[in-house]
Amino acid sequence: MNIELGRPKEHCGIVGIYGVEDAARDVYFGLFALQHRGQESAGISSAYGKYIFTRADMGLIPAVFDEEDITKLVGDMAIGHTRYSTYGGSKKEYCQPVSLDKNLVLAHNGNLPITKPLEDFLDSKGIDWNNCNDTMLMYKAINYNLKRGSGLSDAVEQIYHLVDGVYACIAMTAREFVVFQDRCAIKPLCMGKVGKSGYIFASETCALDTIGAKFTEEIKPGEMLVLKDNKMRRKQVTAGDLKRDSWEFVYFARPDSVMLGRSIGIVRLTLGKLLAQQYPTDADIVIGVPNSGTTASIGYAQESGIPWQEGLIKNNYIGRTFIQPNKRSELVRLKLNPIEEIISGKRIVLVDDSIVRGTTTPKVINILRNKGAREVHMRIPAPPYKWPDYYGTDTPIQEGLIAAKNSEEEIRKFIGADSLRYLSFEATIRAIGLPENQLSTSWFTGVYPIPIGELANNIKGLKTNA
Amino acid sequence: MNIELGRPKEHCGIVGIYGVEDAARDVYFGLFALQHRGQESAGISSAYGKYIFTRADMGLIPAVFDEEDITKLVGDMAIGHTRYSTYGGSKKEYCQPVSLDKNLVLAHNGNLPITKPLEDFLDSKGIDWNNCNDTMLMYKAINYNLKRGSGLSDAVEQIYHLVDGVYACIAMTAREFVVFQDRCAIKPLCMGKVGKSGYIFASETCALDTIGAKFTEEIKPGEMLVLKDNKMRRKQVTAGDLKRDSWEFVYFARPDSVMLGRSIGIVRLTLGKLLAQQYPTDADIVIGVPNSGTTASIGYAQESGIPWQEGLIKNNYIGRTFIQPNKRSELVRLKLNPIEEIISGKRIVLVDDSIVRGTTTPKVINILRNKGAREVHMRIPAPPYKWPDYYGTDTPIQEGLIAAKNSEEEIRKFIGADSLRYLSFEATIRAIGLPENQLSTSWFTGVYPIPIGELANNIKGLKTNA
Amino acid sequence: MNIELGRPKEHCGIVGIYGVEDAARDVYFGLFALQHRGQESAGISSAYGKYIFTRADMGLIPAVFDEEDITKLVGDMAIGHTRYSTYGGSKKEYCQPVSLDKNLVLAHNGNLPITKPLEDFLDSKGIDWNNCNDTMLMYKAINYNLKRGSGLSDAVEQIYHLVDGVYACIAMTAREFVVFQDRCAIKPLCMGKVGKSGYIFASETCALDTIGAKFTEEIKPGEMLVLKDNKMRRKQVTAGDLKRDSWEFVYFARPDSVMLGRSIGIVRLTLGKLLAQQYPTDADIVIGVPNSGTTASIGYAQESGIPWQEGLIKNNYIGRTFIQPNKRSELVRLKLNPIEEIISGKRIVLVDDSIVRGTTTPKVINILRNKGAREVHMRIPAPPYKWPDYYGTDTPIQEGLIAAKNSEEEIRKFIGADSLRYLSFEATIRAIGLPENQLSTSWFTGVYPIPIGELANNIKGLKTNA
Amino acid sequence: MNIELGRPKEHCGIVGIYGVEDAARDVYFGLFALQHRGQESAGISSAYGKYIFTRADMGLIPAVFDEEDITKLVGDMAIGHTRYSTYGGSKKEYCQPVSLDKNLVLAHNGNLPITKPLEDFLDSKGIDWNNCNDTMLMYKAINYNLKRGSGLSDAVEQIYHLVDGVYACIAMTAREFVVFQDRCAIKPLCMGKVGKSGYIFASETCALDTIGAKFTEEIKPGEMLVLKDNKMRRKQVTAGDLKRDSWEFVYFARPDSVMLGRSIGIVRLTLGKLLAQQYPTDADIVIGVPNSGTTASIGYAQESGIPWQEGLIKNNYIGRTFIQPNKRSELVRLKLNPIEEIISGKRIVLVDDSIVRGTTTPKVINILRNKGAREVHMRIPAPPYKWPDYYGTDTPIQEGLIAAKNSEEEIRKFIGADSLRYLSFEATIRAIGLPENQLSTSWFTGVYPIPIGELANNIKGLKTNA
Repeated sequence: MNIELGRPKEHCGIVGIYGVEDAARDVYFGLFALQHRGQESAGISSAYGKYIFTRADMGLIPAVFDEEDITKLVGDMAIGHTRYSTYGGSKKEYCQPVSLDKNLVLAHNGNLPITKPLEDFLDSKGIDWNNCNDTMLMYKAINYNLKRGSGLSDAVEQIYHLVDGVYACIAMTAREFVVFQDRCAIKPLCMGKVGKSGYIFASETCALDTIGAKFTEEIKPGEMLVLKDNKMRRKQVTAGDLKRDSWEFVYFARPDSVMLGRSIGIVRLTLGKLLAQQYPTDADIVIGVPNSGTTASIGYAQESGIPWQEGLIKNNYIGRTFIQPNKRSELVRLKLNPIEEIISGKRIVLVDDSIVRGTTTPKVINILRNKGAREVHMRIPAPPYKWPDYYGTDTPIQEGLIAAKNSEEEIRKFIGADSLRYLSFEATIRAIGLPENQLSTSWFTGVYPIPIGELANNIKGLKTNA
Repeated sequence: MNIELGRPKEHCGIVGIYGVEDAARDVYFGLFALQHRGQESAGISSAYGKYIFTRADMGLIPAVFDEEDITKLVGDMAIGHTRYSTYGGSKKEYCQPVSLDKNLVLAHNGNLPITKPLEDFLDSKGIDWNNCNDTMLMYKAINYNLKRGSGLSDAVEQIYHLVDGVYACIAMTAREFVVFQDRCAIKPLCMGKVGKSGYIFASETCALDTIGAKFTEEIKPGEMLVLKDNKMRRKQVTAGDLKRDSWEFVYFARPDSVMLGRSIGIVRLTLGKLLAQQYPTDADIVIGVPNSGTTASIGYAQESGIPWQEGLIKNNYIGRTFIQPNKRSELVRLKLNPIEEIISGKRIVLVDDSIVRGTTTPKVINILRNKGAREVHMRIPAPPYKWPDYYGTDTPIQEGLIAAKNSEEEIRKFIGADSLRYLSFEATIRAIGLPENQLSTSWFTGVYPIPIGELANNIKGLKTNA
Repeated sequence: MNIELGRPKEHCGIVGIYGVEDAARDVYFGLFALQHRGQESAGISSAYGKYIFTRADMGLIPAVFDEEDITKLVGDMAIGHTRYSTYGGSKKEYCQPVSLDKNLVLAHNGNLPITKPLEDFLDSKGIDWNNCNDTMLMYKAINYNLKRGSGLSDAVEQIYHLVDGVYACIAMTAREFVVFQDRCAIKPLCMGKVGKSGYIFASETCALDTIGAKFTEEIKPGEMLVLKDNKMRRKQVTAGDLKRDSWEFVYFARPDSVMLGRSIGIVRLTLGKLLAQQYPTDADIVIGVPNSGTTASIGYAQESGIPWQEGLIKNNYIGRTFIQPNKRSELVRLKLNPIEEIISGKRIVLVDDSIVRGTTTPKVINILRNKGAREVHMRIPAPPYKWPDYYGTDTPIQEGLIAAKNSEEEIRKFIGADSLRYLSFEATIRAIGLPENQLSTSWFTGVYPIPIGELANNIKGLKTNA
Repeated sequence: MNIELGRPKEHCGIVGIYGVEDAARDVYFGLFALQHRGQESAGISSAYGKYIFTRADMGLIPAVFDEEDITKLVGDMAIGHTRYSTYGGSKKEYCQPVSLDKNLVLAHNGNLPITKPLEDFLDSKGIDWNNCNDTMLMYKAINYNLKRGSGLSDAVEQIYHLVDGVYACIAMTAREFVVFQDRCAIKPLCMGKVGKSGYIFASETCALDTIGAKFTEEIKPGEMLVLKDNKMRRKQVTAGDLKRDSWEFVYFARPDSVMLGRSIGIVRLTLGKLLAQQYPTDADIVIGVPNSGTTASIGYAQESGIPWQEGLIKNNYIGRTFIQPNKRSELVRLKLNPIEEIISGKRIVLVDDSIVRGTTTPKVINILRNKGAREVHMRIPAPPYKWPDYYGTDTPIQEGLIAAKNSEEEIRKFIGADSLRYLSFEATIRAIGLPENQLSTSWFTGVYPIPIGELANNIKGLKTNA
């Protein structure tokens, strides 16, 4: 199998602050709240006078920045980025904010499935784009416009026709600060007020909470916000058609964030409750796989009346270890350890947010059985993950998705559960609480609201649910 | 106030493995399971041929070791240490295993309240002990004996009369591996089998689980185990009188560990249940302060029938940040963020493991009130923390302990709760499930089973509960 | 022997640039030319807008700064410092420029033998000065004045009466740049023009050459130069009495520097020539100990007609190694290696700049004898080094100076030479080419132009040559 | 111009020690003496028991190793390598000793112009060799033989027929230590005794001097030395035909080394003397470009009677700086600074070892003229460098060699000298003092004793001098 997956892909969190003294310091704390959106690299750029200052490197946020670094990121506006490369780009040169040139920085959350128009544009201008990832392509096109004399907002606007992809972005020169969303607003980006006259923009509201900012609204699909000379201007650059990634509600976002008016924690509790309604189980305890399955498992327990128990303890200090274990199979044990007294002899409802590749779930079930679980009933608070994501998740190859080619019964056997049930698509949408047509549900339906171009070749021969 | 707190104090986790190929690799994974016992520095020593190899540094375990480091720690026996300095010793020179000399390494969990006999001994031998912490004093005394020709086990045994303190230790030369406990076994240390002929020793059983080892028993008070030439010899060096630190059950140990036959998770659930029995509350939801209060809060909810909710979300990526926040008060928000939809309008039972200094609790309650909590009823699944700990916790000054000088009502007012209740001492002992005379309960009773010498001057004028 | 040597001492190079775009970059290259004046730590501060940026650390200049560091040191004025601690201060906290506060940075070359008036001043203002070295004391006093509202130049001027020591300094706030000399100008500091309107100040002229600057003059004793708003103002703060350290000509300065109108290289050639006149030798070749003895040895050869040879090769890559050699005696061999074919069978005149402690010279002579040297006649192009230096050199203890207590014959025996001759004091002064009363010659005469206070206790019982 | 230069090329120094306690420590000091043969990366491997330990990284030797590193490199045999990549290989993965597998390490000085036979061999065994440089190809072939059961010496011997290139190598397993030379011994490798029973092997004798070892002889062309169980066995693996790189005498080796019985320092003095005989000059002073031209310039002065002067001072602290200068042309000034008083008004004979690309020489002459030199007569103590080197030097492209396409008069004009003279080929050979047929002189004659295969395409259209 020789699959062409295109350019490096990534999953990210972004923060930008305008009009606040020592803005970089606040960006740092906001970024911390978004560490779950990317643990591979982090970066912050600030602007003061005619200069832009940037610090970015591989590593978790506390490893990248020390007090001296933050102190040097002077100025009243700053942007930050935290990144997890989902495919092909775990390199220092891909750290963001991109700062190839002294005059411009760009933080981007998203992916561009189709990049040909951008490449052609750069070719026509004689600009080399080898070794560029998506963000660097956008950067170079914006920077070309900037250098030809456009202001930053015009420079950004001029590339919209070249870039029909997924992007929630913040760009900054020493004078101007521009926030912009793709036409579907697939990736989240919200706005808040800091103090009397400052603004914050962030992927999730939990970043606002961290610095005591007050949420005001979400950036609209196709919208651009321009902050300059302490004034904000908004413009609808292209027609918007909201298609928020439904996976944000199920998995990506933190439970303490609010998105499009919906509390993520409440959505997940509801997913669990509806799952209990659809698939009641005769069992002794409910356990969630921490941390991703925890909230829905609580919902399942509340609705079913079966006691919820902390049966699996997660080692919270595990970020990433690169030490080769003596016996590979024990890596899951390093992260998840059972409490035998809770599990032994019990019929267990086990809730996890999803079964994507099927590599972890069988090991978790095996751990429970080794500690004496009598029965393990797997319950997933979402429909099967059938279609690859080309907008950011770490699932670009459909072959690797266990639900793409296997029936539920085949999956049940593979993971070793006594039973397996997925929440229905309809119930999932109901729990999210937004109209289905405002959501991107490609992972289940195979319908991609932003075209994926040649990447579709990877998924030929499969039918969409739509 | 000019309090003399003596030598640096610390809280630690230790692991040792004997008779297993590439022992250091297994020690690494075992140590990972003990990261909660010390996040400040980490180290591993291994022995091969006539050499001992050591790698130790400040930082979390994954920051200290890379694959190359582990590969270089060759040999069939190894010991590891993870450390948190609770007072005066956050320095690289205090990293363990101590390896001042090429021929000996020592990993120590505990503290020596009285060091005069050791110092006198070293003085009499002309050995300089300036700038030594407790562990280095022990190390130098053992090493003196070793160099005079004693084997390691004899060298260790010869210092028992000099050291009536708290120590769960593993010492290693290139030929010999010695595990030893103080006469009260205040700090935990257990043993397990690795494969057919290997042994593991660790502070908690969760470290055994990580590498698939099988727990066999706990090291007895005053016991020494000597592993040499693939044989194990056990010796009762001094009369044992078990006084395990009760705080291990309430706070230190991981819920997935088993100690003295008791599942820590079950103990904490029971603490919560007994608390609900003693102090039922008219409330809408139960919330735990994650992660330390989580398990007991679940017990409270189960017993009371009040729904348990995940109302506070912890940022799990926070290890330590050294960046100064713009507004100090927001640091708690960086770690704990509420879900408004769960909290708003609710009467809340809030459970945390303890109120030690009273710095965090008022902020947490304030966060809940800001999100609309109608009432906050604080419930502590243990008696008040009244007496300083001189055996390891970060509480050496009684002045700083809010319960030392304030009544429950004063504390309630200070933290801003609608009500405050502590579990009774008797119920706490009942939940732990061990005879009271096998526990050290100095933090509540002021009775110190291992003498604390001049440190007692810090607590003059207060009466013990005993 | 319990000698009190007072505060840490150091030997340094400084550079400052005003009115040049990206000044820090030029400071970097200028500093590189002064690396011989301090290899232990390096630092640069720049100022832009209302901020001062500083990067300083232990290590050689290329190890301390990378391109990113220099890029971040923005602004049109900058100061740099390279440091070698001669006594008691090899610590990161003593790196310069001192930047304890955000608003002020200070680079200092020199030492203050008497600090009591400064300490009393700080005490009277309630300012803690524990753990301060000389420079930090000066810094804190200047900063106190600055915060009370003085401009930087006034703040500096106000401390002159407190500081009768050795200092060639550059201080900088975000708006002002002040260069100042002690009343004797013991340490060198010169000025040059950069481009049309920029200024450079540096310890030696070789730093000016590196960036193509044009030397204009030396800073006068007791003079202060104030650069602000692109104007320069000069002021004689205190009466000047030039006493330049004569050791600069003999040893410290680079041969390609010019000081007080005298080429250092020509001075050293002349020292060698006068030595040959005073002490002609019947020998086959002249060899210098590289690099410090090289230039004078060439002069000796030229004057005597004896062929000069490169008989000892220096390993130029040796900065510092901290690896313990297997056999201590070989460390000199690591640095100096002889060419046997040049040395064997020869009667050698060996020239080195000085014999200070007598630790290296015997080893060098031994190396030559091992390679077959028939005779070794040691010739020193300066008088014996008899008195400790309290102004900066690494010679604070008179006991350690071999010439303080030994006759020439005793020294000759100790170093193992066939003969030993020192250039006369008169000839040394003649070679330097400046009036004797404009030089500090304490190392030979015991006359200290700047009072050394209680440090004089270290040298009691010895008579001055004066 | 699209030149195919083949695999990465490099210039290196190697050291190996057998039968000495803590061999790595001695290797470290020996390596230090060879730092001039490679400043880009350094590495040491040692063997003890069944393990091999390696530490290798980018950087100068003192930056790569600290005391802890050396302490961990235990055992009685060790090899070291210092490397400068001359083309295409400045990457960490190319650091040596190569240690791709745990059981084998290899240190290689040289280059393989033809690698097809090796690649075919690896292909036939199914071994991937993508991204391998020359040394890694050799390593993989040796390791294949080793794993099939050959002892190390057999494994090495079995690849001789695949590798007709340039290599002076040391390979080591945990039990065996093998030194081997290519059939021409193009690169130097000598042997010495350490103490009573130890051996040292090194690229130059100066490495032996550093640790007090006694030189015994050079490794012969085509010879292999096998050290095992404390015995040494020697074998002539292939017919030898000595062709030592003549450039070692002119430029590479340190003046304090002895090679093939000839003192490098004396050879260079003689080159200068013969140059003075062939091309006497009417001038006031002789100056060498430090450090490479120094020794020959002294010879020129001695023979001509014109005084030698230190007119250009080199900044010895310049290893490498990666800071971009403000004005490119000043980089030479950073390294070389003139003494005006010596140069001004003088007619100067300027001696440098060679003019390879012609980038530095014009700048040096310009510096002299700016300081008032009246005439500058360039004298090169070797013939013109006309042909690219494919054995290691940084001169793979003939286009870049100024003497390849320009006449002496054209070069003189380009560098701006008043006259230019090269020493004749015959005199150069005479100074070296070895028969011409024992030398490789490809850089002047175009005759390559080891075939260069397709690399010859780079030099088509030019005639050899042979």
